[in-house]
Amino acid sequence: MSEAPYKVIGIDPGSINTGWGIIQEVSGGFKFIHCGVISSKKNTFTDRITNIFKELTKIIQHYNPNEAAVEQVFVSKNALSALKLGQARGAAIVACSNQGLEVEGYEATVIKKSLVGYGSATKEQVAFMVEKILNVSIKSMKLDASDALAAAICHCSMRKFKKYRERIPVV
Amino acid sequence: MSEAPYKVIGIDPGSINTGWGIIQEVSGGFKFIHCGVISSKKNTFTDRITNIFKELTKIIQHYNPNEAAVEQVFVSKNALSALKLGQARGAAIVACSNQGLEVEGYEATVIKKSLVGYGSATKEQVAFMVEKILNVSIKSMKLDASDALAAAICHCSMRKFKKYRERIPVV
Repeated sequence: MSEAPYKVIGIDPGSINTGWGIIQEVSGGFKFIHCGVISSKKNTFTDRITNIFKELTKIIQHYNPNEAAVEQVFVSKNALSALKLGQARGAAIVACSNQGLEVEGYEATVIKKSLVGYGSATKEQVAFMVEKILNVSIKSMKLDASDALAAAICHCSMRKFKKYRERIPVV
Repeated sequence: MSEAPYKVIGIDPGSINTGWGIIQEVSGGFKFIHCGVISSKKNTFTDRITNIFKELTKIIQHYNPNEAAVEQVFVSKNALSALKLGQARGAAIVACSNQGLEVEGYEATVIKKSLVGYGSATKEQVAFMVEKILNVSIKSMKLDASDALAAAICHCSMRKFKKYRERIPVV
């Protein structure tokens, strides 16, 4: 019996737009499964936060990924923006862990460095790399979705080292 | 048949300690039902956020409140603290709305003003008022729990005006 495919959901949380993308590990690379953006501009703030949780729960139940990679934004803006973003991120984390997924956070700079080569890359540059790595057309997807896919790709690349890390000798 | 008692859960979210308290409206005042603090110092950050969601879900299912009042802290500290607090708040909101509760947010200053009389009151002063209003001993409860009860009391006091607000004449 062949092993079940290993899938990762990447999430780029935001209180207005939350991007998500699912990829699968295949021999020698990654396969694009699906992606999208959860938008909830018209609702109240509480509705938006709840909507992120509910929509992500549906997506996870449908695609059944094994792990989750959530972008961890470094906030240089004001504390109020950070508080809003944090609530969206909290809802996203809970949606994943409530479905039994292990959640790993990655700072945006780490994801950019991993894909583009430097931490201050633009969203467009990240999207370009996602397009190349997954062999999909970026035109049809929003930048939040490609950021989410980038988080998933970063996670898949990094998890390979995880098993070795546990064996790092203590000096 | 008598009407089912109206109960409110108040929540004071925090990434380390999340206070919660449930009160019931009774003729001429409020009745203390229960309160507590969800602490998760020892876990990873993702575990803490998930723990808030799971524990609050259990509490809501057990006590079956009608509505939720969540303290909305004004963050004057740095953006990173706000991001952490936001995630805890997001988990709390989602726990409530996922159980079908309407969630109302109250700024800490509004809660303090409502109970103590001025917005810059200390936690101890709020606890003193909670003790008097609910006729309970504050010694046995942590300050996060009394802050949560204060949010619930504030919500109950304010909701009375809600029905009139809808009828405010447009001028």
